[in-house]
Amino acid sequence: MTISDRWLLPDGVEDILPPLAGKIESLRRELMDTYQRWGYQLVIPPLIEYLESLLTGTGNDLALQTFKLTDQLTGRMMGVRADMTPQAARIDAHTLRQEGVTRLCYAGHVLHTRPPHMLTGRTPIQAGCELFGSQSPVADREVIALMLESLRLAGLPRIHLDLAHVSIYQELVAAAGFDQDTEQRIFDAMRRKSVPELDQLLAAYPPGSPAARLRQLARISGGREALAEARVALEGASLVIDSALQQLELLAEDLAAGYPEVELGFDFCELRGYNYHTGLVFAAYAPGHGEALAKGGRYDAIGKDFGRARPATGFSVDVRALVGLGHRVVNRPGAIWAPADADPALAGVIAELRMTETVIQALPEDGQTDPRTRRCDRQLVKQDGQWAIQRLD
Amino acid sequence: MTISDRWLLPDGVEDILPPLAGKIESLRRELMDTYQRWGYQLVIPPLIEYLESLLTGTGNDLALQTFKLTDQLTGRMMGVRADMTPQAARIDAHTLRQEGVTRLCYAGHVLHTRPPHMLTGRTPIQAGCELFGSQSPVADREVIALMLESLRLAGLPRIHLDLAHVSIYQELVAAAGFDQDTEQRIFDAMRRKSVPELDQLLAAYPPGSPAARLRQLARISGGREALAEARVALEGASLVIDSALQQLELLAEDLAAGYPEVELGFDFCELRGYNYHTGLVFAAYAPGHGEALAKGGRYDAIGKDFGRARPATGFSVDVRALVGLGHRVVNRPGAIWAPADADPALAGVIAELRMTETVIQALPEDGQTDPRTRRCDRQLVKQDGQWAIQRLD
Repeated sequence: MTISDRWLLPDGVEDILPPLAGKIESLRRELMDTYQRWGYQLVIPPLIEYLESLLTGTGNDLALQTFKLTDQLTGRMMGVRADMTPQAARIDAHTLRQEGVTRLCYAGHVLHTRPPHMLTGRTPIQAGCELFGSQSPVADREVIALMLESLRLAGLPRIHLDLAHVSIYQELVAAAGFDQDTEQRIFDAMRRKSVPELDQLLAAYPPGSPAARLRQLARISGGREALAEARVALEGASLVIDSALQQLELLAEDLAAGYPEVELGFDFCELRGYNYHTGLVFAAYAPGHGEALAKGGRYDAIGKDFGRARPATGFSVDVRALVGLGHRVVNRPGAIWAPADADPALAGVIAELRMTETVIQALPEDGQTDPRTRRCDRQLVKQDGQWAIQRLD
Repeated sequence: MTISDRWLLPDGVEDILPPLAGKIESLRRELMDTYQRWGYQLVIPPLIEYLESLLTGTGNDLALQTFKLTDQLTGRMMGVRADMTPQAARIDAHTLRQEGVTRLCYAGHVLHTRPPHMLTGRTPIQAGCELFGSQSPVADREVIALMLESLRLAGLPRIHLDLAHVSIYQELVAAAGFDQDTEQRIFDAMRRKSVPELDQLLAAYPPGSPAARLRQLARISGGREALAEARVALEGASLVIDSALQQLELLAEDLAAGYPEVELGFDFCELRGYNYHTGLVFAAYAPGHGEALAKGGRYDAIGKDFGRARPATGFSVDVRALVGLGHRVVNRPGAIWAPADADPALAGVIAELRMTETVIQALPEDGQTDPRTRRCDRQLVKQDGQWAIQRLD
């Protein structure tokens, strides 16, 4: 490696510079403040954990996305977090162990072995909220409302919200009684949304059977009309499915009333990226951007693996992506330029001003630097023995 | 691994819970705001880089502290940053390439393979400032002032500041002309401050020789009187050493005048933890805590390795350690409890209040929860058909 490419960064890894860095910091703060005003308490989970705790209760996707490290103190395998939600679940179940409902929020870098999508990086800045101890749909509505509020704060005017329910797929697969190999092939085809492949795998099953319903369901997606279609296709399939569809319907009604500007979509076999979810799932998209900007759902099983069963729901957003796509304006006022003068009176004036203003003091190297090229719109000058602020035009 | 220890975290790795997490977030924000008011612009360097760029211009210590990962996209070695200063130097030299003086600040997690000290963790939250493009001692004074301001903001009342200059050791070793093996043994003994070992290694050299001066110097440390002793011991050794001592003297005078409450110390052979420094170095300690809370210095060589020679000086602090040792009070006002009532008027009142207040809405599971156990000092109640705030006693 020569000097000329020593600065090369890996694909999907970037330096975030001013003014973008400032915008990200400002949105990060506003999100954390908002989450806390909704009652979510800030936690800072660690960047690394033993692999077992990091991947407890999660699926294979997350294991593939997680960078592995050897702990030099014990020789055991650790991982760099690829998702903070399981960490929050561990904190709720084991570290905090609060009685009753617990609301937690967090923000920090996560790391992925490969970019999950062409458009995204490998080091997203994840912010999110998790609500533990309630199985009520009211809890799901609260986290969805807070997720939509996050997107509004990022300045994203048009949002498409996809709703799904993982138990529909799970129930049909269980009822169909596939052998393990077939089940895996159906799962793979569903994730890739390959209708021809599903047709081939499921063609032999009689109409009305769970397998035939799966095949039918893979074709149904779209707006609220898709929900009605699914109702017909799944009629009498199971009580769990009925209840899942009913939950989706009530939620859709609620969201249509509360957020008429949000476009709703339904996809009954959505399986991508839901690593540990057990019920309602949701993902928010901006027009023209294929990757979800925010996603979440219900995951009632992780806590149990840490020794305490807890219903759980939550969401997370990618702060970097939100700032990249949103129209968020951060107005930073101009700075004040101070000369390279050792006068103690000047030091006092600068210290006073820095309570509220940005003051950049010249160094010997600055020479004849034009302060306006350094974000300054005012400067300190000595007039009649006093330091005064002068506007720069 | 059984359920009972699945939650175990590695040594030196921790969950940061409320209210500590809130204190860390609040100090982090205040530091970033302060750095920006001094003219330092925020950058967000990546969590991972190729090992070559991460370790360019740095010493072996940093290489040992850095976790290595394989990039699955290219097969090349990457590292998780163990220090953000070299990243800032790369950004200045290559990514930003601004003319003249550049001031950058940052905050984020870094990761260490082993805890550098019994008292510290492996995932510190590093915040810091770097100043590029000035070789003036005024630049060093600016970053030291900002470092001391950081410690003041953390609520640390008593600070001990150690000053040193790496060129003193470097000049004496170069002048002594040791063979490589001896030089390494002297370096190791100096780092461990083992005076008996140095006596043995350096006993054969005549008085007044560079080697004898090294031996003498290892014994000199303490307050400003140590500076005078060093002056005598190093008289006529070299022009570079004279100038280093003079810089230390001027700085000491300056700091004694500006920060009479800060206790100054000098250690002329301090080599621990300075991985890439080339001149003045400094470290701040709190009484009774053996590990430096903040440290920094001059490093004029890293930029060159990225294709652009730039004088540089800066410092960084461990935000987690500062909050642990400091006496920082964060007053978070009590929250308002709202009942689990679907009244749209209540939703409106809550949304309004959340512009400035924390409102926690009850969920069905909350039942007879006492709001005072949930950080609430007020609650919303319906009086004559209107929602009103009632104080909780």
